Amino acid sequence: MAKDFTTREEDFSKWYNELVIKADLAQNSDVRGCMVIKPYGYSIWESMQAELDRMFKETGHSNAYFPLLIPKSYLSKEADHVDGFAKECAVVTHYRLKNNEEGDGVVVDPEAKLEEELIIRPTSETIIWNTYRGWIQSHRDLPILINQWANVMRWEMRTRIFLRTSEFLWQEGHTAHATKEEAIQETKQMLDVYADFAEDFMAVPVIKGVKTENERFPGALDTYCIEALMQDGKALQAGTSHFLGQKFSETFDVKFTDKDGKLKHVWASSWGVSTRLMGALIMSHSDDEGLVVPPKLAPVQVAIIPIYKGEEQLNAISNKLAPVVKALKEKGVRVKFDNRDNQRPGWKFAQYEFQGVPVRLALGNRDLESGKIEVARRDNKTKETIAFDTVVEHVFKLLEEIQENLFNRAKSYRDNHISEVNSYDDFKDVLNGKGGFVSAHWDGTTETELKIKEETSATIRCIPLDNIKESGLCFYSGKPSNQRVLFAKAY
Amino acid sequence: MAKDFTTREEDFSKWYNELVIKADLAQNSDVRGCMVIKPYGYSIWESMQAELDRMFKETGHSNAYFPLLIPKSYLSKEADHVDGFAKECAVVTHYRLKNNEEGDGVVVDPEAKLEEELIIRPTSETIIWNTYRGWIQSHRDLPILINQWANVMRWEMRTRIFLRTSEFLWQEGHTAHATKEEAIQETKQMLDVYADFAEDFMAVPVIKGVKTENERFPGALDTYCIEALMQDGKALQAGTSHFLGQKFSETFDVKFTDKDGKLKHVWASSWGVSTRLMGALIMSHSDDEGLVVPPKLAPVQVAIIPIYKGEEQLNAISNKLAPVVKALKEKGVRVKFDNRDNQRPGWKFAQYEFQGVPVRLALGNRDLESGKIEVARRDNKTKETIAFDTVVEHVFKLLEEIQENLFNRAKSYRDNHISEVNSYDDFKDVLNGKGGFVSAHWDGTTETELKIKEETSATIRCIPLDNIKESGLCFYSGKPSNQRVLFAKAY
Repeated sequence: MAKDFTTREEDFSKWYNELVIKADLAQNSDVRGCMVIKPYGYSIWESMQAELDRMFKETGHSNAYFPLLIPKSYLSKEADHVDGFAKECAVVTHYRLKNNEEGDGVVVDPEAKLEEELIIRPTSETIIWNTYRGWIQSHRDLPILINQWANVMRWEMRTRIFLRTSEFLWQEGHTAHATKEEAIQETKQMLDVYADFAEDFMAVPVIKGVKTENERFPGALDTYCIEALMQDGKALQAGTSHFLGQKFSETFDVKFTDKDGKLKHVWASSWGVSTRLMGALIMSHSDDEGLVVPPKLAPVQVAIIPIYKGEEQLNAISNKLAPVVKALKEKGVRVKFDNRDNQRPGWKFAQYEFQGVPVRLALGNRDLESGKIEVARRDNKTKETIAFDTVVEHVFKLLEEIQENLFNRAKSYRDNHISEVNSYDDFKDVLNGKGGFVSAHWDGTTETELKIKEETSATIRCIPLDNIKESGLCFYSGKPSNQRVLFAKAY
Repeated sequence: MAKDFTTREEDFSKWYNELVIKADLAQNSDVRGCMVIKPYGYSIWESMQAELDRMFKETGHSNAYFPLLIPKSYLSKEADHVDGFAKECAVVTHYRLKNNEEGDGVVVDPEAKLEEELIIRPTSETIIWNTYRGWIQSHRDLPILINQWANVMRWEMRTRIFLRTSEFLWQEGHTAHATKEEAIQETKQMLDVYADFAEDFMAVPVIKGVKTENERFPGALDTYCIEALMQDGKALQAGTSHFLGQKFSETFDVKFTDKDGKLKHVWASSWGVSTRLMGALIMSHSDDEGLVVPPKLAPVQVAIIPIYKGEEQLNAISNKLAPVVKALKEKGVRVKFDNRDNQRPGWKFAQYEFQGVPVRLALGNRDLESGKIEVARRDNKTKETIAFDTVVEHVFKLLEEIQENLFNRAKSYRDNHISEVNSYDDFKDVLNGKGGFVSAHWDGTTETELKIKEETSATIRCIPLDNIKESGLCFYSGKPSNQRVLFAKAY
């Protein structure tokens, strides 16, 4: 299966595109920029959703659902927000088609023009805050802690599956609070949830930070983010959490009577991750043999393949394996015993390898006699033969080990790709050479930030939250700076 | 809370609308026909989704995701389908807004007109079958058993929350098979899944049947359905499963090489249920005191309310209840111990009653001394005081009993509202009197069916699958008939 498969070194971008298709994760549709997420890809997304949803609920959030379509005028209400979102979007102008009187098919009925155009949500702050106005009167109605799982649409010019598509799936949290402190605390809490999810489940190490003013979410006072590093040395923003201040409550006139009897504007946060995480997952762990999925998110964690000739051997092998399958399932392991007889073992090996199944077991007739079983792990491509009787415990531990190994491997790569530089020449050398994050002094101005971006295409990914204050000089302008920030080329 | 609440007898329709709002299930949005599903309503929908999803997976289906937008020309390709769906739909014509040069806000950019208009999916057969063409070459690629959880949009003129909205949430299964028999078997299997779900989880008895040609899904050869009866005597179609034959595979040219080496068109089914089920749930069980939710779908199954004065009493009560809460949770019961001190017990009682929580426990200081606890059930509004030590077992059994009771109550009502009639006068008497299903002979023609609909607004809900063949005369035309069918006024 790995034949005709581009390697990462040859062309990372081509490798990614081929991997997405060949591992049956997703494909482009006939509708520009919109993807079809295939069952295997979707099942990984479902694993992500399940864990995130659990984490959201454990932190007190409930799910709800708001309309897909947003009146055009809502988007115009918040000045920054409209600049950021209203421009490239799908606009619904009519609500009826009719038979084409001059030919085949159907045409838009000009009689069915909407009085006000509707926009397919690029994000839902406006329609949600317009709704919250009716829900909030008193401090007793606060906080509101709501999340929505939904599809959104942004009319992107250059699209790539999972990374940048016109339609994508995501969750968006929208919370309302009585105080500024509480809203900021929520914003930071959700950043922590995202970071924990990325590291503990995706096995992707992330840097928590805050965006510069120029990179902020349109309408936010502060945007917090988690930044990951892909194997080609480019950064990927994997999740954002925004402190919105009172901008949306002022715009949509959402006030509450506080305990002191005074009428005040509500404080807000919003936060989201999307199917983009699929891209981050793929580009963090996968290799020239295909996809690698960390055990905690793998739809199939253990594939078991019988190697047999004839029904009698298959029956003997199946009987031997049945208690193993049962015991693993009882331990919560997702096992697939693949006894399909229309494909050979070699074909199955190749498929599970390419689709990134963490552990593969193979049992043949000779193993039955010798009391052994072959165990192969996907992460480092090693194989060993172990005593059959120990296989359940062994596999259970191995899954934990693989999860850990993937994280450590990615973290070691990431840590080796944070370079401190103090001159523009060094800055460019790193960017064009080893890649990764460049930690450098910056003078704090948008002007400098934009010039650097124009000249090198690197952006400031974030100001890390755990940054050490350190005085220095901006490598570009020579002006004073009190801390380093992280630059990188990014997805 | 039940104050200012219309009774079912006064005005069923008003009762429904008020219930949806007052129980915090959902509300209309500013976008015509689109609803906001509030956290409490959404959590019931999530319970439904979880069970259905489990049932789909147990029957071998996987989830996937297809684009929201469908090219206009796709809808035109299948003649029946376009008649049924393409007419009232949301049409995307542009992909950009720009600042209004002559005033405030933003306007549609005429430069950003799409070459071909895109339709927000009213259902996804066309885009999915266009995709399946690339997935299917050989009989080894079949069957394809896919489900999608998604939002869809149909531009409805008269809308009602959950029952008929422009945007709604649903699942749509789309399967592809090598043989006609297999596709029909799948169609019927999914009807059974829907019926089991409705009866076992929603506690809503349903009649399985097949639609008349006139009531078929546009593009189907046969539409199977489950029909439920609401407390006002009107029927509600709660789910449909369609045998699509080879219509979509022919339209989208989806062929496979069969085992015999011949190229054949693929056979298809599609099936769906939607947030409409929320309406069916509400109108089946709820009463003049508010919502009634069957235990299996209730977000909170047991609400426990401490009745106390001062912190000391609350602590004593909380300590006493802690092991009960723990034991119930360990048994998988969804418990809420409501010790909020900003609301009185009476207010809490009223809230849980109105939101349909199946069981309410109340424990006060006197109960502590006497070793008793008060148990109230929502379905029949009875209360009893039981020995505290038996509460866990008691509640666990009670939840089963309530689930059963709700089903039996609804079934008894439904069975009492199936009337056999043999004349048009009796037909009209039943429709305008007691309501419900009318079992009557029909001559099998669409002409008669439409005349009856025009004159009485009753439609043929279905030809029951377990129908007994019986010769008779059509009550309307007097022509011969070989079986009775079920008529009703319907949602």
